[in-house]
Amino acid sequence: MLVHTIKEVREKVKEWKTQGLTIGLVPTMGALHAGHKSLIDKSVEKCDKTVVSVFVNPIQFCPGEDLDKYPRTLDEDERLCNEAGVDLIFAPSPNEMYGQGHILSNDFLTYVIPPYFYVDKLCGKSRVGHFDGVCTVVNKLFNIVQPDFGFFGEKDRQQLIILKKMVKDLNIPIQIIPCPIVREESGLALSSRNKYLSEEDKKEALALSKILFNIKACYQKGITDCNALYETAFSYLNNHHSLEYLEFRDAENLEEKTIADNNTIVFIALKIGNVRLIDNISLGDL
Amino acid sequence: MLVHTIKEVREKVKEWKTQGLTIGLVPTMGALHAGHKSLIDKSVEKCDKTVVSVFVNPIQFCPGEDLDKYPRTLDEDERLCNEAGVDLIFAPSPNEMYGQGHILSNDFLTYVIPPYFYVDKLCGKSRVGHFDGVCTVVNKLFNIVQPDFGFFGEKDRQQLIILKKMVKDLNIPIQIIPCPIVREESGLALSSRNKYLSEEDKKEALALSKILFNIKACYQKGITDCNALYETAFSYLNNHHSLEYLEFRDAENLEEKTIADNNTIVFIALKIGNVRLIDNISLGDL
Repeated sequence: MLVHTIKEVREKVKEWKTQGLTIGLVPTMGALHAGHKSLIDKSVEKCDKTVVSVFVNPIQFCPGEDLDKYPRTLDEDERLCNEAGVDLIFAPSPNEMYGQGHILSNDFLTYVIPPYFYVDKLCGKSRVGHFDGVCTVVNKLFNIVQPDFGFFGEKDRQQLIILKKMVKDLNIPIQIIPCPIVREESGLALSSRNKYLSEEDKKEALALSKILFNIKACYQKGITDCNALYETAFSYLNNHHSLEYLEFRDAENLEEKTIADNNTIVFIALKIGNVRLIDNISLGDL
Repeated sequence: MLVHTIKEVREKVKEWKTQGLTIGLVPTMGALHAGHKSLIDKSVEKCDKTVVSVFVNPIQFCPGEDLDKYPRTLDEDERLCNEAGVDLIFAPSPNEMYGQGHILSNDFLTYVIPPYFYVDKLCGKSRVGHFDGVCTVVNKLFNIVQPDFGFFGEKDRQQLIILKKMVKDLNIPIQIIPCPIVREESGLALSSRNKYLSEEDKKEALALSKILFNIKACYQKGITDCNALYETAFSYLNNHHSLEYLEFRDAENLEEKTIADNNTIVFIALKIGNVRLIDNISLGDL
């Protein structure tokens, strides 16, 4: 069932809660792919009822980013959700979420702001205000759907860590379930923004996963010095790549690592033409 | 029943929710007086179960404010609650609320931040960060107790307006119930900080309510020009008073009024010695 209003969601949720059913929420910006599908599958398996939200959230886009051209494919999204056994799709308009004529600024809107230490690095450095928008909209979705579980992909690992911190800091009675990155056979991590890539670009995009896989292989062979691991990246980079960051950080609190361990995440962001891609890998996972 | 941990509250609340009971929350910083009692009475009347939280929230005090000397009277508070029919008193330690060894800054803690337009005026002007701390702790308490209703006094009117805005902006599934100011026979609005006043100060403190009552009487006689209404205050002020603000603002969005109407709140703050007192009146209420 596809609904567009908060009222309809609340009615459905109330009905389910009265019956004592558990609810899973998969927040998305639509343009669903096999990565999202893996989150949905996990929720459908774990929870009595699964809600997927489809909302391209304006307040998490920075000036100059791709808000207008971000892919919107609601019909296909609905088909994927129905086939996957989703019970409710919530696809609100910006007006429904933020009010008619609302001014989307912190002058006139209550925001949920993650700690500065978590956002002054990695994607937060170039995407100023992005995680404020993410935390605010996820908080709103949590309050609208009141799920027992929220499903988030490890693809957006900094987001996942920040949202776990939000849930802990604000005592939100919801458990965050992290879901592994889904990759093409080539190694490329799935992303709605892959639609922006030409065939040629897609080949260049393999640098991200190759760099990460190689670093992990080196780590498993016993190299733990992060500088040494960092240096291994350059053989995969060419003049089509503009490296934004390649960093080694703690999986819980994002502190920088100089010596890699099983609690280390390697984060990478690079641009191919105008398309910015991110990926990451946990050195601890087998 | 008095409990100190989030876990105990959650267990109790879960039990009540399973039984389909409604829950009212009265958040306080303790040092309970007849003003708080009126909130508690309203909750006990309206809800199946009433929770009172007693927590002197460090993050809503600014540097140099009275965090350390703020009155703490838990035994008396417990007695008042029990006599009033409160079902659960939640009196957590700062560690319980913010975590052992937690650094209370926006570097390491997720905050809920009210809109700038609502906090750059009145008490927010001198108490920088105060309402960030209020919104954050109330959000936490809402998530811990998950009440159907939250009871807040009109004494802290700017706080009430900001919290209503927070609930709306973040789609929090809780209804805010405003409760009228309780006054001594003299007119003095009840406040935990009245304990700081000497007998002499208390007489001087009557200026606040006298100014407000007189403005309302003038308004009811047909004077609507806010400048003219403002001028009427000076006959009540002497050199014991240091006026911080006397302002006419909209009851919903705190916009400044030049012409008073039934939607206007008159806000006053003044210092007597080192004690800062606030009061307000709605021109619309009969």
